[in-house]
Amino acid sequence: MVKLAILDVDGTITDSSRRIQESAITAIRKAQDNGKIISLVSGNVVPVMYALQVYIGIKNEVFAENGGVMYFKNKIEKFFHKRKTDEFLTHISKISSARGIFTNVWRYSSMAFEMDSEDVEKVRAESIKWNLDITDSSFSWHVLNKGQNKGYALKKLIELHNVEKEDVLVVGDSKNDLPMFVEDVNRSTVKNGDPGLKELSDYISPRGLDEAIPDIFRKFSLI
Amino acid sequence: MVKLAILDVDGTITDSSRRIQESAITAIRKAQDNGKIISLVSGNVVPVMYALQVYIGIKNEVFAENGGVMYFKNKIEKFFHKRKTDEFLTHISKISSARGIFTNVWRYSSMAFEMDSEDVEKVRAESIKWNLDITDSSFSWHVLNKGQNKGYALKKLIELHNVEKEDVLVVGDSKNDLPMFVEDVNRSTVKNGDPGLKELSDYISPRGLDEAIPDIFRKFSLI
Repeated sequence: MVKLAILDVDGTITDSSRRIQESAITAIRKAQDNGKIISLVSGNVVPVMYALQVYIGIKNEVFAENGGVMYFKNKIEKFFHKRKTDEFLTHISKISSARGIFTNVWRYSSMAFEMDSEDVEKVRAESIKWNLDITDSSFSWHVLNKGQNKGYALKKLIELHNVEKEDVLVVGDSKNDLPMFVEDVNRSTVKNGDPGLKELSDYISPRGLDEAIPDIFRKFSLI
Repeated sequence: MVKLAILDVDGTITDSSRRIQESAITAIRKAQDNGKIISLVSGNVVPVMYALQVYIGIKNEVFAENGGVMYFKNKIEKFFHKRKTDEFLTHISKISSARGIFTNVWRYSSMAFEMDSEDVEKVRAESIKWNLDITDSSFSWHVLNKGQNKGYALKKLIELHNVEKEDVLVVGDSKNDLPMFVEDVNRSTVKNGDPGLKELSDYISPRGLDEAIPDIFRKFSLI
């Protein structure tokens, strides 16, 4: 029985323009009222995840910067440092079209950037040299420390709440959600989810984004 | 005919635990689809207002720190500086129970704090000496520069969009919304609104917070 669910934000509980779905908010609140633990994980910055936690009314930990930082009860816990990712961004900004995005001023453990598609392979090659990871959230690119990904957030959350993997549900829509689509947990994606996620999913919601979260939550008996 | 509406956030589009009302999100989107300009103003920090703008899908400027900072299209415009308010907070922290709140790390033009109720008059007296204003958002106290208030945000917005005051609607619930309850604009508050706002309001919604915004928007023909 699912006791804990961790959800990606953009494209999962929002539409493709990042507008949050009212039905997802309602479903999350209902699942919490049923005693379920709900968490969010995103590549976005801590204060944005703080805002989502407050305004949705999430009662548990939320994760920013792809798992690099956790926020709970007025405390920011940083698991990785931004120094190396910041240096990397300075470097690739000189040799490619990469440019940092404005929310970087609020980052603690990673950097986000945009770049022209023809530079992706060049920048990826650089990231390998630097022993860093780059990942595409489909809203921007992120440069992350080794081991910093949504799977790290999932692991932290499982430890904190002492639940079994089979009692966990993960929901995502894009490539950067893959690290939390691990064996033994329940995995679900949305209609427009990445093919790689679909292949690993126990359930692919056929519903439009405006109904996907309640549909998935009903499927796994959270509501 | 109302063309532009500026809404307070906490207690106005959220319930008393700060959970956003799904019906408010729906109403805001519908009003925008009808060509109305919708803006938010809050004592909260810029990245939180940025998050609300993105996830609600607000198409126009939003204001943080009680009008001290404006956010629009990846640009932060700062109208006041935080230096003096920061010094004031350091000072009152020494002589009273006042203590800064954790979101102050993301502030640009003011400071927020909590204090025991018996210290309010003492801290207010200090703020007068320092030529600063203190205001209670009912979620925390704020220390602001002279002239920094929600009326300042309203004025900016009216100038930016070149609308007449009679084509503007302001909606708020607490004392710190008073500076935008100016003459000639349409003024509305919620059932649990501050008595001072109620006195000035053209319309007090009798509906619970879960329906107040659609009710007010219908009243002023935004939806």
